[in-house]
Amino acid sequence: MTALSNRLTRTLMLRHPIVSAPMAFAGGGALAAAVSRAGGLGLIGGGYGDPTWLDEQFEAARGARVGVGFITWSLRKSPSLLTDVLKHRPAAVMLSFGDPRPFVDEIRAAGAALICQCQDMDHVADAVDVRADVVVAQAAEAGGHGALRGTLSFVPEVADFLAQNSPDTLLLAAGGIADGRGLAAALMLGADGVLVGTRLWASQEALVKERHHDAIVETSGDGTLRTRVADIARQLPWPRGFTARIRRNAFTDRWHGREELLEKNLAVEGPRYRQAFAEGDPENTGVWFGEAAGVIHAIEPAAGIVERMVAEAAERMVARGGASLD
Amino acid sequence: MTALSNRLTRTLMLRHPIVSAPMAFAGGGALAAAVSRAGGLGLIGGGYGDPTWLDEQFEAARGARVGVGFITWSLRKSPSLLTDVLKHRPAAVMLSFGDPRPFVDEIRAAGAALICQCQDMDHVADAVDVRADVVVAQAAEAGGHGALRGTLSFVPEVADFLAQNSPDTLLLAAGGIADGRGLAAALMLGADGVLVGTRLWASQEALVKERHHDAIVETSGDGTLRTRVADIARQLPWPRGFTARIRRNAFTDRWHGREELLEKNLAVEGPRYRQAFAEGDPENTGVWFGEAAGVIHAIEPAAGIVERMVAEAAERMVARGGASLD
Repeated sequence: MTALSNRLTRTLMLRHPIVSAPMAFAGGGALAAAVSRAGGLGLIGGGYGDPTWLDEQFEAARGARVGVGFITWSLRKSPSLLTDVLKHRPAAVMLSFGDPRPFVDEIRAAGAALICQCQDMDHVADAVDVRADVVVAQAAEAGGHGALRGTLSFVPEVADFLAQNSPDTLLLAAGGIADGRGLAAALMLGADGVLVGTRLWASQEALVKERHHDAIVETSGDGTLRTRVADIARQLPWPRGFTARIRRNAFTDRWHGREELLEKNLAVEGPRYRQAFAEGDPENTGVWFGEAAGVIHAIEPAAGIVERMVAEAAERMVARGGASLD
Repeated sequence: MTALSNRLTRTLMLRHPIVSAPMAFAGGGALAAAVSRAGGLGLIGGGYGDPTWLDEQFEAARGARVGVGFITWSLRKSPSLLTDVLKHRPAAVMLSFGDPRPFVDEIRAAGAALICQCQDMDHVADAVDVRADVVVAQAAEAGGHGALRGTLSFVPEVADFLAQNSPDTLLLAAGGIADGRGLAAALMLGADGVLVGTRLWASQEALVKERHHDAIVETSGDGTLRTRVADIARQLPWPRGFTARIRRNAFTDRWHGREELLEKNLAVEGPRYRQAFAEGDPENTGVWFGEAAGVIHAIEPAAGIVERMVAEAAERMVARGGASLD
């Protein structure tokens, strides 16, 4: 089995420069453990902060060396959650979507690597300011929450900023990376590795309903959009500037562009959204995946996904993308 | 000097797999000729169809082997323009933003390579249908007109589609590619080469006013947006689905999100936009560049830009992005 090693794998003690995105609801302990056992680093999705669920997921990881990720603005409402989770000795804690400052000291004191996910250059400056061990440059292709930059332009700009201001900070690329081509491209762009969401959402270990899994296999990369409608239906107070990429379906066709009307109809539409989500209905709720859907054709075990990414990236780099240098 | 050769360079008879975007107004004959003489393929921007300007630009190319690009929906209004331009024997004709069918036979009969620029998978299917020689997968990072897909997810999905349906069709990646990192990444993603706009807009040969050039050097990749306001101000009937990425400035701050109000104020705002554009005002008109602004720090000769892209891409591919394979 090919291994891909660099300063990221040496620092985080991995075999491959692949980290799983801490996807709310979908990224549980079984997925994180499978990614870590395959040589990457699995992160459990802390989501909106259910302590019982989080304890169960660390239990489900069965002693694998995993980390955890939080939605920072949400964690701020229940900071004791971080203290509880650190008792599980996560290898890393990722903070996304908000000011990391209130949590940095506690994470560092627990010996976990601090990963800050960034969507623009101001976020990157903040991450360097708190001396993050790892910066994630997350771009608009990503499934779930994010912002507007494109991976291909954002990653090299962040790499330049880090080279100039904090050369030891490690860089992960996130957004649209689902196979060895994406991994190899991320390394060429100056990333030390990749954060993978959508491709691992489409794994057997992800906590995703079967009909949602069927939907990603059938959907092309054109079949998603960035929108606020899922957060409005769930009454989650996401800060402006962040939207969620989800599948285009009956729910988004009905409400995207009619956000004010959805807000007026929450008494009906809120419960309808949540029930459809619980039932795995692919049309009447948010189905949480990104543009990489277009290169995903099967739901597979996470270990196989990780191993194939590495083998394919190695192959493409050795072949220099099919070009000859004279 | 390093040369990067592959099936694209062999088919189009180039030294490097780099094509310049046919940027309206900015991409004249001098830029196209400089790119072609540096080993790529330069395309003159046909824009909205001014036959005198186009003749002047072919003249300015001084016999270099160049091509030309058109805005397809606009060309449809004055199809004789294509007949006129084909007299200059362009090496290639690129069609973007509309149905290529009405023009394909004439282009092929003139012996020019047919390049179809695509923003979604339906466009790619159309391009294969008309047997395009080259498909450009153009994504949202790009400056100027385009749509919503991200380069990093769109390119491999298009590569898979072509491999399955039309394996001899060549593929260029476009959107956010401004240096050797972007070129190497595009090759890893499965492209045969790149179409470069913003980085060549920021060249000495581009027909761009000095203060607009100053603006790109000062702007980070976060400092652009996709919007309809420039087209509204110019009263250009762009089809829905396409927006333009331009610099965030006083003009976009004032009107983006207030499109209906801008439409009501066209008698004043239209001439104001055009005058500011003619004067090179960086604040009160559209300033046409993309997210790659964040890695552009100087206005340079086009040949140096092309040569550095190739050398840097070769270096990164040889170094395998800093990773070791075990």
